[in-house]
Amino acid sequence: MGQCNCRKKRKDSQELTDVERAIETVINQFHCYAVKGQKEYLTPNEMRELVVQKLPHLGKCVGPLDEKIECMGDPDEAKLEFGEYWDMMGDAAKGCRRK
Amino acid sequence: MGQCNCRKKRKDSQELTDVERAIETVINQFHCYAVKGQKEYLTPNEMRELVVQKLPHLGKCVGPLDEKIECMGDPDEAKLEFGEYWDMMGDAAKGCRRK
Repeated sequence: MGQCNCRKKRKDSQELTDVERAIETVINQFHCYAVKGQKEYLTPNEMRELVVQKLPHLGKCVGPLDEKIECMGDPDEAKLEFGEYWDMMGDAAKGCRRK
Repeated sequence: MGQCNCRKKRKDSQELTDVERAIETVINQFHCYAVKGQKEYLTPNEMRELVVQKLPHLGKCVGPLDEKIECMGDPDEAKLEFGEYWDMMGDAAKGCRRK
């Protein structure tokens, strides 16, 4: 997956602070990988793609990916909701801070 | 608080993906407001400053600030650790998604 164009443009995006833009970036990635914003969760494969492609440096702080995906249960039914995705990014952030 | 110069420069920052840079931005703000990186938590006043100054659009999704600060307990002793800060940013993100 290269450039994703599914992100919604905010009318007032130019007024957002750097932190708000950063939060939007993290949100947008979720929607880009959740099959172009058509649903509100990531499948295990979408999650794997996102971590591999978008967290090449911080991904290792998330923990073993295969283990995480296995914990999600049946690969055809498992869903990573936005809240869990945010927590996963938090694990990456905490790992990054410990460096 | 205007520009914060306390952020640690990563040697390989130019290689980070957009999401990784976004995560770093959110992390850096925590350290900028935690009295220039000298401690690992925000006081209630530092948290208030950060939300008011850095989340002018998304801050309302965090919930009533005074209530949140009151819940932290004694203002001279209360601490917002990094994990709680990340959760607070998640509340802002979830509120932003609902818009």
